[in-house]
Parts: sequence; C-alpha cells; structure tokens
Amino acid sequence: MDVTWTRSHILDLADWTAAEYDIVLQTACSFRDVLAGRTKKVPALQGQVVTNLFFEPSTRTRSSFELAAKRLSADVMNFAPGSSSLTKGETILDTAKTYLAMGADIMVIRHQQAGVPQFIASEMDRLDVGVKVLNAGDGQHEHPSQALLDLYTIATLLDYEKPCVEHLKGKKIAIVGDILHSRVARSNIWSLTAAGADVHLAGPPTLLPTLFSGMKGANQTGSLTLHWELEPALVNADFVMALRLQKERMTAHLLPSLREYHQRYGITRDRLKSCKAEVKVLHPGPVNRGVEISSDLMDDPQFSLIQQQVTSGVAIRMALLYLIGTSEDP
Amino acid sequence: MDVTWTRSHILDLADWTAAEYDIVLQTACSFRDVLAGRTKKVPALQGQVVTNLFFEPSTRTRSSFELAAKRLSADVMNFAPGSSSLTKGETILDTAKTYLAMGADIMVIRHQQAGVPQFIASEMDRLDVGVKVLNAGDGQHEHPSQALLDLYTIATLLDYEKPCVEHLKGKKIAIVGDILHSRVARSNIWSLTAAGADVHLAGPPTLLPTLFSGMKGANQTGSLTLHWELEPALVNADFVMALRLQKERMTAHLLPSLREYHQRYGITRDRLKSCKAEVKVLHPGPVNRGVEISSDLMDDPQFSLIQQQVTSGVAIRMALLYLIGTSEDP
Amino acid sequence: MDVTWTRSHILDLADWTAAEYDIVLQTACSFRDVLAGRTKKVPALQGQVVTNLFFEPSTRTRSSFELAAKRLSADVMNFAPGSSSLTKGETILDTAKTYLAMGADIMVIRHQQAGVPQFIASEMDRLDVGVKVLNAGDGQHEHPSQALLDLYTIATLLDYEKPCVEHLKGKKIAIVGDILHSRVARSNIWSLTAAGADVHLAGPPTLLPTLFSGMKGANQTGSLTLHWELEPALVNADFVMALRLQKERMTAHLLPSLREYHQRYGITRDRLKSCKAEVKVLHPGPVNRGVEISSDLMDDPQFSLIQQQVTSGVAIRMALLYLIGTSEDP
Repeated sequence: MDVTWTRSHILDLADWTAAEYDIVLQTACSFRDVLAGRTKKVPALQGQVVTNLFFEPSTRTRSSFELAAKRLSADVMNFAPGSSSLTKGETILDTAKTYLAMGADIMVIRHQQAGVPQFIASEMDRLDVGVKVLNAGDGQHEHPSQALLDLYTIATLLDYEKPCVEHLKGKKIAIVGDILHSRVARSNIWSLTAAGADVHLAGPPTLLPTLFSGMKGANQTGSLTLHWELEPALVNADFVMALRLQKERMTAHLLPSLREYHQRYGITRDRLKSCKAEVKVLHPGPVNRGVEISSDLMDDPQFSLIQQQVTSGVAIRMALLYLIGTSEDP
Repeated sequence: MDVTWTRSHILDLADWTAAEYDIVLQTACSFRDVLAGRTKKVPALQGQVVTNLFFEPSTRTRSSFELAAKRLSADVMNFAPGSSSLTKGETILDTAKTYLAMGADIMVIRHQQAGVPQFIASEMDRLDVGVKVLNAGDGQHEHPSQALLDLYTIATLLDYEKPCVEHLKGKKIAIVGDILHSRVARSNIWSLTAAGADVHLAGPPTLLPTLFSGMKGANQTGSLTLHWELEPALVNADFVMALRLQKERMTAHLLPSLREYHQRYGITRDRLKSCKAEVKVLHPGPVNRGVEISSDLMDDPQFSLIQQQVTSGVAIRMALLYLIGTSEDP
Repeated sequence: MDVTWTRSHILDLADWTAAEYDIVLQTACSFRDVLAGRTKKVPALQGQVVTNLFFEPSTRTRSSFELAAKRLSADVMNFAPGSSSLTKGETILDTAKTYLAMGADIMVIRHQQAGVPQFIASEMDRLDVGVKVLNAGDGQHEHPSQALLDLYTIATLLDYEKPCVEHLKGKKIAIVGDILHSRVARSNIWSLTAAGADVHLAGPPTLLPTLFSGMKGANQTGSLTLHWELEPALVNADFVMALRLQKERMTAHLLPSLREYHQRYGITRDRLKSCKAEVKVLHPGPVNRGVEISSDLMDDPQFSLIQQQVTSGVAIRMALLYLIGTSEDP
C-alpha cells in the first residue's frame, strides 16, 4: 500500500477515502494473529495513557475500547461522569484539559451532544499538545468505530485473507429502522457508499426524512436510496443492518407500538427470503429481541453476524488506537 | 498427587470429591510463596481476560477476584450492571455472549437468581468456545469460592505446611444463623461433610427448615445435624461459623428483632465456653457487629479467623482461576 | 541531601520540616524524566497494591493517584462506596482491615470526616502490618498531596532545575476565599509558612474566623496575616491562590450571591494589577468559572498555573507513593 496514515484524530467518516478505509481494515487484520496467540498483547502503546471520557455511559463500547487499549499495553483511565466535576461548574473542555494535564495521550470521547469530540480535538490542536481524539459516539452525528467494525465484519466475510473495500462494490446493503436518530446509520452511510456499496435505507417516514438523500460526497461511489417500506430495501440485499430502536421514541409519538414496529420493520427469517440466499444480518447491539430482529434469527449463525461484530470491535479499536497513537504530529 | 484437575467450570460443590478439594488447597498453598515475595505476581494467565459479570453488586468479592486475577497477570474487565444494557432489552446470555465475543477467557458470575452461572456455562460448552465459568454466588444456591476459602482457612490452621481435607475428619463445625437463605451455608455443608467433618446447623425454625437434613451425597463422609437452639451446636465445637444476617429478613417477619436474634443466636465469648478450648470463629463478612458476633469477639485474634478468611480468599481465587484457566478443554 | 525519609504515612503537614518538603520536591523532580520519556513507567512499586479508599467520591483526585500508582507499576484497587458494605453495618475500620487482609500495601484514603486517615493509620501501626496510609483529604482538616503539588508548582516555576523551599522565602502568597471550610487552605498554610513564605488569607468574616491566626508551629518561619478584604492581600503578591467555593455555603447563609462574591473576592485581570508583574494564579480545581476567577484569566497561560497544578499532581503523588512505599518500617 502506498498510502500512509495521516489523521491524528478519528472524528467523522464523511470525508474518508477508500484508501483510508483499507489502511484501517488491513491494520485490524494484522492484529488478528496477535489476538489468536497466547499472549494477545503487543507493546505498541506501552506507557501511553488512553482516557475514556464517556459523558454518555456505555458499558459495552467502553469495555471494547478498554480491552483494545490494554492489548496494545496502554494504561487506561476511565472518566465516570456520575461522580465527576461536571456538576460542579466545570466545562467539558475543562475536564478534557484536566486529563490532558494528567498526561492523557489519547482521548476516547462519547457525548450526548453532536460535535463535542470535534470541539475537543480542535482545542487540543490549537494547544499543540499532540493529544489524539477518537469519537466514540457524538449525539446523533457519528459513531465511526462502529461503522468501521461493521465494514471490517463485512469485508472479512467477503475476503478473509485480504479484507478491503473493493469487495463491497455493488453490494446491496439495507439499513433498517430509526435512521433519523442513529449516529450508527450516519457513519455507515458514509463508509459503505465510499466503499462503493449500494445502500438502501428503510424506515417509517417519521424516522427517515428525505434529507438523508443528500448524504453524498466526493468519495461516495456507491448509491443511496430511501424507502418508507421495508420490502424494496430487502429485495436481493447482500446485507441487512437493523438499527437499535430507542424505546423513548415511542413516548415522543414518533412510532406506533413495538409490536406494530416489528410487524412492519422487524427482520425475520421469512422476510429474508427476498434477499440474496447468502444474506447476513447485522445489528450494533444491544438488540431488543423480537423488535428489530426476531429472536430466533438473531441467534442463527447462518444469518447473524452480531457476535462477529463485537469481536471485530476489539480489532478495529486496536487498529484505530494504534494508527492515531503512532501517527506523527502534522 | 495422582489426581489431575478436570473441571473447566467451578459451579457448585455438591459432587466434589475429597481429592478435588485437596488439589485446590494445595494449589492455593503453592501461591503462598508468591504472595509473600516481592513481586507477588506470576505470569500464569498472561494475556487471558477475566471478566467479572456481577449482576448483583459486591465490592468485596469482586475486589478479591480482581486482585487474584491481576496477580496471575490476567487482564480484568468489570461489568457494571448500573450502566449496562440489561435495562435495554438484552438477556443475561446476550451480555455473556458479548463479553465472549470481545475475548473473555474466564467469566466470574454473580447473580441474584440461582442457576445463572450454570446456565451460562452450559451455553458456553454448547458453543464449544472454551470459556470457563466461575460461580461467584448464585441466589440462595451456592458460593463455592467462599466455602473453599473457609476450608482453606481451617485446613491451614490445622496443618500450615500441608493443608488437606483429612485433617478435618471428625471435627465438629457449627454453622449458625440464617441457613435457609444462605448460599454460603449450602456450599460449606457440601465441602465440610465431604471433608469428613461433623457439621451442626443451628438457627431459628423459620430459617432452618428440616429439608436441610437431606443434603447428603456420595462424597459426604461427615455427618449433618440440625438444631433449633444454639447450645447443642456449640458443645465441643472446633469451629463456629456465623452467617451474615440480611436485615430484610426481619421485615419479612422471619425473625424477631436484631436484639433478640443476638440474645438467642449471637456468638459471644461467654457462649464459646462450651466449645473446645481452641475453638475458632468464622464469618463470611461483612459482619453486623453485635448481631451475629459480639463486637469484641470479632476483633479478638485468639478466636476470630475473619481476617484470615479474607486473605485466604485471594489465594483460593488465584488457585481456582489458575486451575480452570490452565485446564485443557475436555 | 543528608536527610533521609522516615515517615511511613502522609497524614497532615502541620509538623513537616523544610528538609522534608525538599525531599518530596526533589523526588517529584526526579520522576520528570520518566514522565517525559517514552515508557513513562518505573518498576519501583511492582507487585505492591495501592488501594484507593474514597469514601467521599472524587474522580479527579482518584484518577491522579491511580495514574501515579500505575506509573510506579503498582496494582490499583478502587473502593466504590456506592456498592459497598458500609451500608451493611460494617465500620470504616472493618473496610480498611478487609483490604489489608486482601493484601493492600498502601491505602489512599479520602473521607468527609476529619481524622479518618489518621485513625486508620494508627490502627495499622498498632497491628504492626507495615501498611502505609496517605490522606487524600479528610473533612475540613488537611489535603496534603494538594498542598504539596501547589508547592511543587510554585517551586519549579521559581527554579525549574532545582525546586526547593528556600526559593519561597519572603514570597507573598495570597489565599482567597472560603478558608474556613477548606482543607486545601489548611494544608497550604502549613507548607507555605514552613517554606518561609508570607501567607495572606483573604475572605469574608463568615468564612475566615480569627482562629486561623493561631496556625503557627515550630517550623513556621514565614508569616501569616488575615484580611477580610481582598485588596491588601493582593498588593505586591507573588502568587494568588483562589479556593473553590462550595455552592452549598450559600444555602447556609454564609455567603451572599455568587455574583456578589465574585465582585468582592473574585480574581480578575484588573485586580491582579496591584500584584507583582509576574504574579501567577493557582486554584485546586474544579473552578466555578466566573466565580472564584474570571473565565478569561483562568485560561490565560501568562497568569494561570491551573494546568501545571494538575500535571504536578501526578508527579507529587508518584513521589509520595514512592517515598512511603519504599520506606522501611520504623
């Protein structure tokens, strides 16, 4: 590969090129032997401090980042917002600067408001302190590591030895559910269409406004199509990605009952019959069993990639921490 | 020793043989020099991931397992139920499978419902993934590591150089208090009677139903006797184990006041006079001072083994993690 | 230096000598190269267990101690009071003895009541177990590591190569705000006057009773002056230390509004004009922006030492853990 890694932050995927995705996929792939081996560790980030600043709590994603960091031999500090100073008049930037002053090298940031990781990253750049920032989910904006682990899961299925984006060219991928509120959907739209896939979004009109059709950039070689019914999105699909439904959407009257949602947009074994024979189902987890996906389908290894996604998560996060942690400052 | 370790999970002690207890005791004993030394660590589980899945919170037991795992050089992931996905429609098995997919090698599981660790273990076996499960307390069923640390505490007192079960043969051991709701009592009944000790249970009828007299299996060479008064259990006792009283039992009308409980079943210096002269007192902790045990007795090193029990806990948990972590898959 | 370190606990600074401060400053200074290097770690406390017993929660201070301990290669156990046994009838001493029995070598203790770390330390000495105790803040009494990091921040500014107390001799240092309730103020009064600085306290009469004028001991070579107005404390000051204002003081009618507090005691760029030209501002953090210090001043690197204080915190805590962790038992 002639391209070298240049980003010092992982914030959003909107302007990523196919070559950048390939570097991440191949780096994750290179950690496969490490994880399969006896010690499962590399000294790549020895002595570096990875700080998880999770203003919005998440056991699952934080655990994945924590394990990835430990396997790179980094030290991990977890910020617990519950017992924090944020209730004491400190700004988010003050908190980040405190961890900077303690010696953080990489900040993994999740926040319920869009733009927070980007803001912290720009402030760190302004201060010229060499701190790297990784967006672990910002509001309804982006969740890059989730989209990258999805991409890695799909790409390794298509070519285990050499996972790369070119294998996704022309594949039909349905993304189903609450697109509007989903940072997972947004990041996946950017990455999958940059990989040349044809992405079909399906969801109720209240959760899939037409503005999504505008998500096209210079690197988007794949197509993007919107459907308010599930069926056209599934026809001949190679992959179906169900999104997690936040139950609070119902109280906001954006949705009918869970039961009706499942009847109209739930992924079932029967509905998959219109897809390609070898269709696979993804979900970022945790799944509301029997809502987004029928319970039996979720547990069927013939169709479900959900466990592989979690495993890919550790490899991808190792790759991301490694790439930014060892990148030279611009 | 001709017997080798074959269990890949530690779930319940009901069918353990004396030879198996001896392997655990001797393994714990072998870590004594490590813990007394300067580095206190061995690389036995380097790179392995021990996941503490404590659905029922417990600082004390979790800390003990965490320290044991770190001294075996394992990486530790803690599952925090408060900020977890369990409130989000995920099943316990989904949670376990998520940590499996992240790379957990050993799962230490505590749950308020009996049978959860066994269920997870059987699912892991069914999936044939080589994950080992250690029950850290399931409902009112069993708490094997607690009983094993009690056994180790007693056995090392009887023979510091070579702690083994044969020294317990014929010893009279009283277990006092809320037997009905105690997983600690159940596990201790199995282990102590398998070691050949004569176990005497004492507690109020509401907390000691007669069904306990049926806890006898093929390996139970010791005797089991029930008493609804404290005194006969204490006569000539070598060891007295007081159980923790859950204060919520009172609100369920299973108990009179704490004061009356202490008067009838509390262990005091005076009451110990009917025991053997060298009698020792155990308690799984934390003690309600002045309820199960009088406060001065608890702090008297002539009688109290409570601190030794905590120390034994780290050694026993190192032994258990080591034995299952290095056992070959069957 | 002819003086060697003899304290096995760090509890309060009231009787510290200038020579002892210098040992801490120079030890912290010696870790500077370690922290600037690639691995950022030394094996000084390998295998030792540092237990953070934070009965009063604090993310910031606990993170600082945790990182310091990890950089000395110690294992860290965190006590989480929320899920603890303290609600279950266990005393603070029982909790400490449990962690002792598990193998804690150093206990870092924070508690909302004054005297708790001293009590635990005296009990550990009585038990003759070699455990070291470090006070991380006890009620309104002392917070030694905070005062030592403040001292280190000032001393390194005055002489980067060889920070020591003699450089503080005759410097005017203003401490401003809620002196009455501040353990940070008390510890700083002891350390700064022992270093020969002239300390000027300023605050409203309700928060600065005259009894503070009695804080003088055998080692206090500097002076201590009280002011109920801010201005005389600032005239020709070399350093201004603003204290954090607890908002609950207002509800106790000890204070007028935040706005009025800022008008009378808030540190602003304008007010600093009466100080020395090179005056610097400190604050233990987290800052209530626009209350104790104006927001722009806080972020101005020409004046603010707040970030350096946080960085100093890790170095000082490494020094303290190292000194007590490697000290011989008396």
